[in-house]
Amino acid sequence: MEGEPTLRLRIFNLNCWAIRYLSKRRQQRVRLIGDTLRQEGFDLVLLQEVWSEQDYSELKLKLAGCYPFSHYFRSGVIGSGLCVFSRFPILDTLLYQYSLNGYPYMLQHGDWFCGKSVGLVVMKISGIIFNVYVTHLHAEYCRDKDAYLPHRLVQAWELAQFIRHTSKAADVVLLGGDLNMHPEDVGIRLLRGWTGLQDAFAEAMHFEGCKNGCTLVPDNCFTDKSELLPFPLGIRIDYILYKAISSFTVKCEELKTTTGRAPGMDIPFSDHEAVMATLHIQRQGQPAGATLGTADPALADVVTEARTEVGAGLRAARQQRYSSGRMAVLALLLLLLQAAAALATLAGLGAEQPFPKLSFCLLAFLALGVLVLATGLHLFHTMEVKMLHGTEDQMWMVLRALQERPSEG
Amino acid sequence: MEGEPTLRLRIFNLNCWAIRYLSKRRQQRVRLIGDTLRQEGFDLVLLQEVWSEQDYSELKLKLAGCYPFSHYFRSGVIGSGLCVFSRFPILDTLLYQYSLNGYPYMLQHGDWFCGKSVGLVVMKISGIIFNVYVTHLHAEYCRDKDAYLPHRLVQAWELAQFIRHTSKAADVVLLGGDLNMHPEDVGIRLLRGWTGLQDAFAEAMHFEGCKNGCTLVPDNCFTDKSELLPFPLGIRIDYILYKAISSFTVKCEELKTTTGRAPGMDIPFSDHEAVMATLHIQRQGQPAGATLGTADPALADVVTEARTEVGAGLRAARQQRYSSGRMAVLALLLLLLQAAAALATLAGLGAEQPFPKLSFCLLAFLALGVLVLATGLHLFHTMEVKMLHGTEDQMWMVLRALQERPSEG
Repeated sequence: MEGEPTLRLRIFNLNCWAIRYLSKRRQQRVRLIGDTLRQEGFDLVLLQEVWSEQDYSELKLKLAGCYPFSHYFRSGVIGSGLCVFSRFPILDTLLYQYSLNGYPYMLQHGDWFCGKSVGLVVMKISGIIFNVYVTHLHAEYCRDKDAYLPHRLVQAWELAQFIRHTSKAADVVLLGGDLNMHPEDVGIRLLRGWTGLQDAFAEAMHFEGCKNGCTLVPDNCFTDKSELLPFPLGIRIDYILYKAISSFTVKCEELKTTTGRAPGMDIPFSDHEAVMATLHIQRQGQPAGATLGTADPALADVVTEARTEVGAGLRAARQQRYSSGRMAVLALLLLLLQAAAALATLAGLGAEQPFPKLSFCLLAFLALGVLVLATGLHLFHTMEVKMLHGTEDQMWMVLRALQERPSEG
Repeated sequence: MEGEPTLRLRIFNLNCWAIRYLSKRRQQRVRLIGDTLRQEGFDLVLLQEVWSEQDYSELKLKLAGCYPFSHYFRSGVIGSGLCVFSRFPILDTLLYQYSLNGYPYMLQHGDWFCGKSVGLVVMKISGIIFNVYVTHLHAEYCRDKDAYLPHRLVQAWELAQFIRHTSKAADVVLLGGDLNMHPEDVGIRLLRGWTGLQDAFAEAMHFEGCKNGCTLVPDNCFTDKSELLPFPLGIRIDYILYKAISSFTVKCEELKTTTGRAPGMDIPFSDHEAVMATLHIQRQGQPAGATLGTADPALADVVTEARTEVGAGLRAARQQRYSSGRMAVLALLLLLLQAAAALATLAGLGAEQPFPKLSFCLLAFLALGVLVLATGLHLFHTMEVKMLHGTEDQMWMVLRALQERPSEG
C-alpha cells in the first residue's frame, strides 16, 4: 500500500427470517432484499436464517453481477441458514458447528434442527487479510427463565475460542450476526472481552436508525408485540463487531439500521432490522494491540460469571440425565417382569392368564416406547453434560491463566 | 534464541484401547502405560481411546510429577477418548467435533457414540509456538467394501481445514493419532497434501520397530488375526506427522514403535503399537515454505479423487434419505387408515368390527414405531446429505483455486 491510504468497507447484516412455509411473505421479502442489495452495492453481505437453499440460489443469481463471490454454509437438518455475498474473492471457508444447541424434543422451538454454527470466510482486500465470521446463536424464548442460557453461553464461548484460534494471521476480524443477546448480557461481555472485538454501534461516529440501535422493534409489523412489552423501544440482538489485529486500525464511520420498514417500502425486509456499517481501515505504524490486556481484570469477572451459569446448566443436565436413566431402567424392569409373567403362563405355571391379552400387549408396547425414548434422552443429556463440563473446565483454565498473568494480553 | 540451538522433543503416541468393560486387561494395561511414561520421561504424550475419565484421572495423578500439564477432551456420549500429557505448559485448547462420524444405529460399531474429534493444544517451548493436534478418525471395518469411507474422508478434510485455519501463528505443527487409514490411502494423501504435513516414519533418519512401521500387527496378542489376514506384516494406521511453518526446520532423528509387547513385558500396551518420535527443531535463516506449492499438481488429483468418493457417499445418503422418508410416509398412511377404520366402527358405519382388537392394536403400535424410527432416520440422513454436500462444495472451491493459480502455495 502506498502512502497509507484508507480502505472504506460497507457491510450489510440481516437475519432474513426466511423459513419455508412459516415466515410471512417470505418470497416477496427475499426478492426485496435481493433488489436492495443490488441497488445499494455493499462490499460485504452477511445473512442469517436463509434456511432454503432455493432462496440462496435465487439471491446468488440476482446478485451475481455486483457480488460475484458467495458462500452458503450447510449444517444440521434444516441448515445453518448462514450465507455471505461479497464483492471481493473468498479465498477460504470453514464451518464450526456449536456443540450444544437446544434440545431435539423441543420441537416448538426447533433450534436444535438448525445446526447453529459459525461460518468463516477469508478474504484479501487491497492486500489486507480479512477474517469474516457470520453466526446465529440459540434464541431466547423467555428472558425471565431462560432455559437455554447455558447453551447460548457455551456457543458464545466456542465462538470466541474459534475466532481467537483461527484469526491469528488476519489483519482485520469482522463478525456479523444475530447473537440473541442484549448488549449488557454476560455472553456478549464474554465474547467481546475474550476476543477484543469492538461493537460497531458503540464506536460509530455517526448513527442513524432505531433508538439505541435496536434490531427487534415494535414498529416492525412482523415482530411479536407481546414479547417486546418489557422493552417499549425494542431490543438490540443483531451486531456488527470488529477489530484490527496487526498494524491496522478500524474505525466505524457510520452505522445505520432499518426502522421497521425497508427503505422506501411499506414492508420490512424481515422481523429483524438490518444493520449496515461503514468501516474505515487504515495501516498504522505500530500494532494496535492492548485491547485485550487492559480489559483483563474485568474479563476474569465475566468469565467467572459465565462459568457460574454454565455450572448451573451442568447441574440441571446431570439431573435430567439421571431422571431419564432412571426412567429407562424402570421401563426395562417392567418389560422383564412382563416377559417373566408371559413365560410363566406359557409354561403353565400360572393357574390362568393373569391379564387380558390386549392390556398386556398395550402395556408392553408402552414400556418399550418409554424405554426407547428414555434411553435416547439419557444419551442426549450425557452428551450435554460432557460439553458443559468441558466448557466449564476450559473456562477454569482461562481463569487460572488470567490470575497468574493479569497484565499480559 | 542464541546461536540457533536445537530443541529436541520426544513424543509418544498411542491408541490405548481402554474401553470400559470391553477391552481386555484394561486396568493392568493403563497402569503399565502410566508406569512406562513415568520412567521414560517423554516431552509430549498423545493418547487416544482413553474412554473412561477415571483412567485419565489415574494417569494424571501418576504422571503429575513428570508431566505436570494435561488436557482431556470431552465430547459425544462416551467421550472423544483424546488426551494430552505434557512436560511444558499448555497455553490454550480447542476441540473440533467432526460433522460426520458413522451412524447411531450401527450399535455394533459404536463410532457415532464417541463424538470423534480433533483436539488442539497450544504450547510455547523455548520460545517456539507449537500447535499440537491429537485425533482419532472413524474405524475401517471392511476394507473391500468400506461403507464409512465418505465419512472418514469428510473427517480427513475437516481435520486438514481445521489445522490450516488454526495453525497460522504456529511455528511448528504436530499431529498424532489413529487415522484409521493406510499410508497410501486417499485420505492420508489429502491430509498431507492439503496441510503440507510430513510423515515422521518416512522422514526418520533412524527407525526401530515393526516392519514398515506397522502399528496393528499379528504379533500383538490383542489384535484380531482374521482381520489382518490380507496383511501378514500388519498395517500402519497410527501416525506422527509434523511441519515447520515459519522460519524453523523440523527433522525426525528417530522413530520407534513397540513390537507386539510393551518393552520388557509380556503383554502389549494396547491392541495398537505405540509410536515414539524424537524430533529436532531448529531456527533457520529463511522461512521453509514451498512444501505445499510444489505438491500442487498432485494435490488437485488427490482432491478430485477424494471428491469422487464423497460424491458417491452423497448419492448413497440421498438414497437412504429417500427410502427412510418413504417408509415414514407409508407408516403414517397406515396409521391414518387405521384411525379411519376405528372411527368408522365407533360411528357404527361398519356392520361389525373388521379386525380382532389385539391384532388391530399391535398393527397400530408397529406402524407408530416404524413412523418414529423412519422419521429419525430421515432427519439423520438429511444432515448427512447436508454435510457431504458441503464438503463436496468446499473441495470444488479448492480445486478451482488450485487450477486458477497452480504455482502458488
